[in-house]
Amino acid sequence: MSKLKLTYFDFNGGRGESVRLALSIGGVPFEDRRVVFKDWPALKASMPFAALPVLEIDGKQVAQSNSINRYVGKLCDLYPSDPYQALLCDEAMDAVEEIVAKISATMFIDEDAKKVQREAIAAGPLTLYLARLQAYLKERGGEFFAAERLTMADLVVSLWVRSLRGGHLDYIAADLTDKVAPLLVQHQVRVAQHPAIVAYYQDH
Amino acid sequence: MSKLKLTYFDFNGGRGESVRLALSIGGVPFEDRRVVFKDWPALKASMPFAALPVLEIDGKQVAQSNSINRYVGKLCDLYPSDPYQALLCDEAMDAVEEIVAKISATMFIDEDAKKVQREAIAAGPLTLYLARLQAYLKERGGEFFAAERLTMADLVVSLWVRSLRGGHLDYIAADLTDKVAPLLVQHQVRVAQHPAIVAYYQDH
Repeated sequence: MSKLKLTYFDFNGGRGESVRLALSIGGVPFEDRRVVFKDWPALKASMPFAALPVLEIDGKQVAQSNSINRYVGKLCDLYPSDPYQALLCDEAMDAVEEIVAKISATMFIDEDAKKVQREAIAAGPLTLYLARLQAYLKERGGEFFAAERLTMADLVVSLWVRSLRGGHLDYIAADLTDKVAPLLVQHQVRVAQHPAIVAYYQDH
Repeated sequence: MSKLKLTYFDFNGGRGESVRLALSIGGVPFEDRRVVFKDWPALKASMPFAALPVLEIDGKQVAQSNSINRYVGKLCDLYPSDPYQALLCDEAMDAVEEIVAKISATMFIDEDAKKVQREAIAAGPLTLYLARLQAYLKERGGEFFAAERLTMADLVVSLWVRSLRGGHLDYIAADLTDKVAPLLVQHQVRVAQHPAIVAYYQDH
């Protein structure tokens, strides 16, 4: 068994959280290195693309959230082996990454521009992506994004929906998902009830 | 064998080109639906995330470039079966997608802002990503990004380097890659000499 170390920010969310949950669900031991924001500037240059999460596998650093998600998904039986089902799992994860990146690009701009851009994103691509993911979920029976079982796509989408509903993003209404994609909300609530996830958050 | 139809823009590049090359290398028949830009506005709403490429598999649409790359890579023996090597392949592809998305976000903004943002991207993340990908390539023997053989990562990175060197992006110097990551240029030239790729471009 490879030695795994995840480096990510010290909060229960963001791009690293799906990795923590997957490894916990799979019962795969890993070092959970949590970086506090004040230490990040000094650490940044030592990360492959100056970003987190980074997974170390036997001391070798690898970056890119969904690449890591996929690898960890295979370790934890949370990734489809059938190529078509793997594609559906990937598509949902990549769609979330794409829209998250679009929103993240508005993080450090001035307040007026942030308001304009975020309102445009909320009304445009964000609503579209939520509606599309909901349509995919519905088409596939309403419970899982791929392979009729829990996969990384369910973790990634539901953590993202949880975060949107947390209302942490100025100018993006916390109830947007409830309004435009209620099936994704039901999905999020259901995934959060997974016994291993419930157990994980009792300790974190 | 599934029936495949790729919908992408009508030029030999961009996010759909790796799919065309892979299917050609693998000898997998597919319908190459090429959309001219003037037809795109009318077509956009019928695509899952209002974007291309989209792959239809037996009539079912799937989106997200790297998800499609990975699926097609499996069909064409251009994707590692070993999970760690698959991770390295994915990481390179996701890194390219990340930086391409950052640059694409500057496509339709006003000229002054475009100049400022693109010069900042070129000096900052673009140089970093090129240097990092070059370092990965070097670490892995200089020839391939994963599994010591041609994979989707080689197609994706080399097509992107070809496009950067084409100088189509105002305010991003065409010789940036030659200056900061000459090994990626050598890699690009070498991949382009693959007999199936040479043969493909004799017909396209």
